[in-house]
Amino acid sequence: MQPISDAMSLFAHQRAVRAFSDRPVDDETLRQVLEAAMHAPSSQNGLPWRFIVIRDPEVKDPLSSLYEECYAQVYGTGEPDRAAGREPWTATPVLIAVCTPAPNGRTSMMTGASVYPACQNLMLAARALGLGSVMTTLWRLKKDAIYELLAIPEGWEIAAIIPLGWPARPFGPNRRPPLEDYVMENRWTAGS
Amino acid sequence: MQPISDAMSLFAHQRAVRAFSDRPVDDETLRQVLEAAMHAPSSQNGLPWRFIVIRDPEVKDPLSSLYEECYAQVYGTGEPDRAAGREPWTATPVLIAVCTPAPNGRTSMMTGASVYPACQNLMLAARALGLGSVMTTLWRLKKDAIYELLAIPEGWEIAAIIPLGWPARPFGPNRRPPLEDYVMENRWTAGS
Repeated sequence: MQPISDAMSLFAHQRAVRAFSDRPVDDETLRQVLEAAMHAPSSQNGLPWRFIVIRDPEVKDPLSSLYEECYAQVYGTGEPDRAAGREPWTATPVLIAVCTPAPNGRTSMMTGASVYPACQNLMLAARALGLGSVMTTLWRLKKDAIYELLAIPEGWEIAAIIPLGWPARPFGPNRRPPLEDYVMENRWTAGS
Repeated sequence: MQPISDAMSLFAHQRAVRAFSDRPVDDETLRQVLEAAMHAPSSQNGLPWRFIVIRDPEVKDPLSSLYEECYAQVYGTGEPDRAAGREPWTATPVLIAVCTPAPNGRTSMMTGASVYPACQNLMLAARALGLGSVMTTLWRLKKDAIYELLAIPEGWEIAAIIPLGWPARPFGPNRRPPLEDYVMENRWTAGS
């Protein structure tokens, strides 16, 4: 995918990328992507996040296996296939687990308000640089095993795991229905 | 604030803006901001959001009063003051209530995974165009009264209310601590 330098063009060019080339993601590029996440807004500017950057096959391979178990559980069997648009995480250059505090083990929609903007910054910066990514939460079906693998301490949750790499193929812009169907004036007026 | 056209510069220039000039936000500018939100990723590409654009004083004024009650409850009394960086919502050109489905009235952190990226796109696009915004959730202390005012139906929640306008004063880039303090390799290794 071509990089995107124009800020207002960025949004329409974010696509869910699940298959990547073998080209590694260099440290400087990765740093820029994580810095973008750091600049996200959060409640009281608390920066309630940590990023676990997973590249070691000793962690990535069992994580990939656990993810495939989740995938099979929901979508039935079917091997991931790079040519078909989804590769196994073993083949993905980088996985980023975005963690957020969960005091007393509790989270809510409001927890998300201060961590998903950081995830979105991360993915938008990736796209700006020509990288692909996708936000995944399906792994939560094997959450306990994954938290053990990644040594997530008490009081923290993983909000998303984001695979990152140079896309295996180019993507065009995303498409959306008319804005008018999603906007109301002053009060809720549509049928629910 | 100056517009930002360079995609990778955008993230470090997003600031929480709570005081705006009297200059109205024209419809075309507003449309661009909402379109950016529409292009956000979401689970299964479900676009689980609606935007209520509030400009009518008959809605904005009581909403502003309710918000001030929440503010007083948490921060004590103290009138909002544009010159001090926070104006009342009565004076804010546009308020956008971002709504998301809550089947059976339930939400979770995962609900946020598919709506806060849209909020973040909205705010980033605003910043790119030179507008200011801020994500607010404090109004949830008066949630019931606000849902009644905005006629929010059963099965929907407001994820955020975002004031939007041309900033009353310019802002420089935001500042963040070193990335290294927020990043780990392969497994959780820091003290929690």
